[in-house]
Amino acid sequence: MLSENTLILLYQDERHKYLIPIGNDKFHTDKGFINFSDLKTKNFGDTVTTNKDEIFYILQPSLYDKVMKVHRKTQIIYPKDIGIIIMYSNIFPGATVIESGVGSGALTTALANFVGPTGKVISYERNEDFAKNTEKNLLKNGLNEPVTIKLREMTEELTFDEENVDFVMIDIGSPWDLIKPAYKALKPGCRMSSICPTFEQLTKTVFKMQEIGFTNIESMEIQLRKILVREGKTRPEQRMPCHTGWLIFGNKINKTI
Amino acid sequence: MLSENTLILLYQDERHKYLIPIGNDKFHTDKGFINFSDLKTKNFGDTVTTNKDEIFYILQPSLYDKVMKVHRKTQIIYPKDIGIIIMYSNIFPGATVIESGVGSGALTTALANFVGPTGKVISYERNEDFAKNTEKNLLKNGLNEPVTIKLREMTEELTFDEENVDFVMIDIGSPWDLIKPAYKALKPGCRMSSICPTFEQLTKTVFKMQEIGFTNIESMEIQLRKILVREGKTRPEQRMPCHTGWLIFGNKINKTI
Amino acid sequence: MLSENTLILLYQDERHKYLIPIGNDKFHTDKGFINFSDLKTKNFGDTVTTNKDEIFYILQPSLYDKVMKVHRKTQIIYPKDIGIIIMYSNIFPGATVIESGVGSGALTTALANFVGPTGKVISYERNEDFAKNTEKNLLKNGLNEPVTIKLREMTEELTFDEENVDFVMIDIGSPWDLIKPAYKALKPGCRMSSICPTFEQLTKTVFKMQEIGFTNIESMEIQLRKILVREGKTRPEQRMPCHTGWLIFGNKINKTI
Amino acid sequence: MLSENTLILLYQDERHKYLIPIGNDKFHTDKGFINFSDLKTKNFGDTVTTNKDEIFYILQPSLYDKVMKVHRKTQIIYPKDIGIIIMYSNIFPGATVIESGVGSGALTTALANFVGPTGKVISYERNEDFAKNTEKNLLKNGLNEPVTIKLREMTEELTFDEENVDFVMIDIGSPWDLIKPAYKALKPGCRMSSICPTFEQLTKTVFKMQEIGFTNIESMEIQLRKILVREGKTRPEQRMPCHTGWLIFGNKINKTI
Repeated sequence: MLSENTLILLYQDERHKYLIPIGNDKFHTDKGFINFSDLKTKNFGDTVTTNKDEIFYILQPSLYDKVMKVHRKTQIIYPKDIGIIIMYSNIFPGATVIESGVGSGALTTALANFVGPTGKVISYERNEDFAKNTEKNLLKNGLNEPVTIKLREMTEELTFDEENVDFVMIDIGSPWDLIKPAYKALKPGCRMSSICPTFEQLTKTVFKMQEIGFTNIESMEIQLRKILVREGKTRPEQRMPCHTGWLIFGNKINKTI
Repeated sequence: MLSENTLILLYQDERHKYLIPIGNDKFHTDKGFINFSDLKTKNFGDTVTTNKDEIFYILQPSLYDKVMKVHRKTQIIYPKDIGIIIMYSNIFPGATVIESGVGSGALTTALANFVGPTGKVISYERNEDFAKNTEKNLLKNGLNEPVTIKLREMTEELTFDEENVDFVMIDIGSPWDLIKPAYKALKPGCRMSSICPTFEQLTKTVFKMQEIGFTNIESMEIQLRKILVREGKTRPEQRMPCHTGWLIFGNKINKTI
Repeated sequence: MLSENTLILLYQDERHKYLIPIGNDKFHTDKGFINFSDLKTKNFGDTVTTNKDEIFYILQPSLYDKVMKVHRKTQIIYPKDIGIIIMYSNIFPGATVIESGVGSGALTTALANFVGPTGKVISYERNEDFAKNTEKNLLKNGLNEPVTIKLREMTEELTFDEENVDFVMIDIGSPWDLIKPAYKALKPGCRMSSICPTFEQLTKTVFKMQEIGFTNIESMEIQLRKILVREGKTRPEQRMPCHTGWLIFGNKINKTI
Repeated sequence: MLSENTLILLYQDERHKYLIPIGNDKFHTDKGFINFSDLKTKNFGDTVTTNKDEIFYILQPSLYDKVMKVHRKTQIIYPKDIGIIIMYSNIFPGATVIESGVGSGALTTALANFVGPTGKVISYERNEDFAKNTEKNLLKNGLNEPVTIKLREMTEELTFDEENVDFVMIDIGSPWDLIKPAYKALKPGCRMSSICPTFEQLTKTVFKMQEIGFTNIESMEIQLRKILVREGKTRPEQRMPCHTGWLIFGNKINKTI
């Protein structure tokens, strides 16, 4: 049986799905409402019916669901890009990682998931509203434990409080400003990453990384195209997001800066 | 200082990079050899020089490096696809997951990294040679602890030994044969995944998943294009891998089968 | 000076552009109206101002503009795909080509442009409304001369009236039905083409072409991504059409059918 | 029957195809030789057999074949890009167009095909070797009639000899140098185009076009992915060219420069 506060994905179709914790009263969908008392008699994998006789499935949320359903105050880093960030770095249970800034906590959610309760995610953010929103998002997803949000504006002259961290993500409008702090915080040989929507940000960030002391610098973009599989009518979706940003990775080398 | 058995990435450029544990004698590159005794006086982030005066950086391997450098006896699942598998499922430190078959252990490496020492990866493989090769790959990468390889050919009539697992990956030529076993092994509401190189495999697998009892079925393909950032000459790479396979995901629903 | 009936592109920006012939009274845009008498004192390359002081450029329409601005009663074949059709076939001034069906005349427009007044485009269409609409589109674009629309439903058992044509385009929901007629109408060694939105149409059409007597059969899809070049903020567009259909080409070989 | 000098495509498969005029003696393939006297007893669509019993089809060359088989002394503009250039401009039988430089004549071949014998292609090229090679390529393809190659190095200060042309293509390493000459040569309101392999060339060219007097400036890239359709094994090709260059288009506006 599903119990209070359990996070579930209520799923009818691609356009009607909700990520919610089990609560006390009712949950309103645009296909009618569901009584939480009904949900508490159900299990994952079951269906539940709204007062308008619309059927929803009760599913285990994937990390994709948790990331996509964060309440957004900013643009988020999308799962297609987070998947690459996770693979092209060195993230593992128990790792210590830094990100700056936190945005709406989409990447934070994934980092918290993968470093786990024995790891640490330290997130620097200058905007209090974004920080608070991210905290709520993490709490809802049950992923707040490893995360510390530091309300602080980072600049080129400052240093992160942490040293010898396994990974640093820089996601701000002028990533070149935080390459030096990222360098100082990283364990030697480890990787930092950044994401840049424009060509000019991409080149400026890469050149700054070369200058400060990174090697094995790689840049790339990711495209994800859905295929709609239907009896006799299988085809790719007709429109897709085709640009979020270029991802950059590089390994810190020992250098006097 | 680097110590015996530490895994390092020796990096000169994209075409000259080696993932090796620190050993006792020499390591031969195609740019000359390096004495391990020299490496033991170094730290991550330092450079080391071959007997032919070629310089290599000593870097922390990323998960990408570990996956791409598995010794291959088969096609592997690429990091771009693994990143999506990890994000679109529910993988976390301590999770229990099944994969069938194991191939060369590329995905196994990533799964082992993310479920960590408190989690379990159970890998079914019928080919003894592949199984042994994967064991060696995992050992080299220090990721063997969570993994159990079961040397067994799975068929539609058989069941996996495990129940209530968090995720099942089917990566065989006829994925439809293992949808029923995957269904039985999965925790209700949880996700399975498969990867299919051909259109006919894709559709047949999706239709079988619908029949057996999955919802929220999604299919997609991923493309990764590198950008070469160079002063005044920035451009995308000129050729790229443009097809590996379509990824499929779906959540188990409760149904009598 | 611009004279009566000259076709012009009134251009303000990507979202505000109009393809119109010079007329007698006024032209209404959503930024106010323009008096045609004003336009008749202008030349190509000049600007003209609406009664709301909005400025439009008077430009020479490109073939792209003519194709995209056909009045639509159906889905159209897009310029990105037409460009490939034109290049992968043998279309030239004076060529004779067949298409079936005509849709809204997007491809017809391009074919008429390239075969020119000495060539012939014979378009078979069963829907009278589509045929009439295409005639109007061609007339507006000044490209009606080479085109003959035949109001007729083609089936596998029928033959096109023409023989020894340079190119046949099949653009219907069941292209396999018209492979035999296309084969009979084509000059030996020449190419036919088709466009198929779904995988199942694609494979069925290709297999039928192999059966009837075509070789050098190629299938492909085209993607066009715009880049927005702006001082310091250059980036690809964020969403794009990512699937129209697969294009198929093949050359007729001599065979008794 | 095929006669002397007729251009044919000898086709066995994607890797074994030859674009040749019917000659007098023998044609050597890497699957044995074919006697031209045998070919002269054949028709388009027939097969012919080499002395090693290898079968080739005799096909009508497409424009794609003519473009791809030009003898190359330089990088060429690929058919996927030429198709877009042709569609996004105003090219028609009888049009007058300029290109600078000529390269190996790939685009020249397509332009000559579409403007036809009543049109004019004026190609400026500073390299005598490239000019001569292009002349041979055009002659082989029977497309030399509309083309005049002018052996001349164009610079920003010079003007093309022609005025009021329908289209100008700039394909040199520093396209910004020829924007002013292109502007002067174009009919008001008409389009020029350029192709730029690097990001820096792209932005510099666009900014120069804005400065000199163009509007409706668009930039884009094209990707073509082949699909291999085979009974039960249909899938996209596994590697593809993923970058040639960004295409730029813009319309001349009246301005004092």
